[in-house]
Amino acid sequence: MHLPLQKTPLEDLAPWRSPLSRAIHRNRALAFSRFLQLATVRADGTPANRTVVFRGFLESTNQLMFVSDRRSQKTAQIQQNPNAEACWYFTKTREQFRLTGQLTLITAETALDDWADARKRLWQKMSDSARLQFAWPQPKASRADSEAFDPPAPDEHSPPPTFSVLCLAVNTVDHLELRGEPQSRCLYDKTANGQWHTAAVNP
Amino acid sequence: MHLPLQKTPLEDLAPWRSPLSRAIHRNRALAFSRFLQLATVRADGTPANRTVVFRGFLESTNQLMFVSDRRSQKTAQIQQNPNAEACWYFTKTREQFRLTGQLTLITAETALDDWADARKRLWQKMSDSARLQFAWPQPKASRADSEAFDPPAPDEHSPPPTFSVLCLAVNTVDHLELRGEPQSRCLYDKTANGQWHTAAVNP
Repeated sequence: MHLPLQKTPLEDLAPWRSPLSRAIHRNRALAFSRFLQLATVRADGTPANRTVVFRGFLESTNQLMFVSDRRSQKTAQIQQNPNAEACWYFTKTREQFRLTGQLTLITAETALDDWADARKRLWQKMSDSARLQFAWPQPKASRADSEAFDPPAPDEHSPPPTFSVLCLAVNTVDHLELRGEPQSRCLYDKTANGQWHTAAVNP
Repeated sequence: MHLPLQKTPLEDLAPWRSPLSRAIHRNRALAFSRFLQLATVRADGTPANRTVVFRGFLESTNQLMFVSDRRSQKTAQIQQNPNAEACWYFTKTREQFRLTGQLTLITAETALDDWADARKRLWQKMSDSARLQFAWPQPKASRADSEAFDPPAPDEHSPPPTFSVLCLAVNTVDHLELRGEPQSRCLYDKTANGQWHTAAVNP
């Protein structure tokens, strides 16, 4: 079911990028404004949902990037079922973006240059403490001794095999603004020919 | 697939209730700390994810309550597939609870007294502006005129048919605390005999 990796297509800026950028900008004083919740589906058909950090857009595309430990359950889930919905609530401006689409996993084995380069650049931009987590013991295994969480610092230039990147290619966006009387809601749908259709709807 | 409604069982306080209550208390100064993201699965097998407001626990149980418009897509989704995962991130204390389980929908047609009473009490506790939204025009339909969003105030004692309640009966909880060196993570699993198993795991 997972889509084969293709060379990243150059994309025009989608119409939802502008309101999303505005929300990120207006909420930038709060570090957690870059946190959002990413829902996927497990192999048994039940939903999974966790907080991830927005790491910017894949160059020249409208794909959102997140990082993930190769050993995490979501990495396995995504290979079986790439469908996802991200829910991003901005607390200061009181607005929500729901973004549905498909995830692509970029790992150490990803050979295509532009995907591999994106993974490497993202690794180099991570903080030292964030990088260290990819050298921690197996996530969700029985709690290891505290020394296991103080490994040697990983090479800051070259990502370890545990470091993977998720790219969300978006099909639909549902933007709800709770401020205003009445509230505003706007739907963006990507049509079969790759164009975006925009509609104002009831909240 | 939807579970038949049963009389609400009286439950002992689950072991994850205490850390969750502590998080709610410590983050109470921020109104949005009662907002969490609820993931479900659509009929086509793709995930859905949206922000909901925590409305307390169903009396004498460990079930989390949310309200929902009967006309919303999630109400239909839940009747086909009650599985859900809530992701609740607390920004001040930097901790995340992931709660998986099954949702029960309480509507105007729900006959059992204790469920129907819970719905009525929740309606009476809502703010005037929150109640008004259940008299707004069809969600996600083409944007209606602004007068349609200024209907007569609904009866504050008796919930309208659009007002439904979702109760999440929890099977597993994954509690991650980002503060501390190293981070803490604790899993709670409900076993077949209804007891809770608790385990400290790697973050």
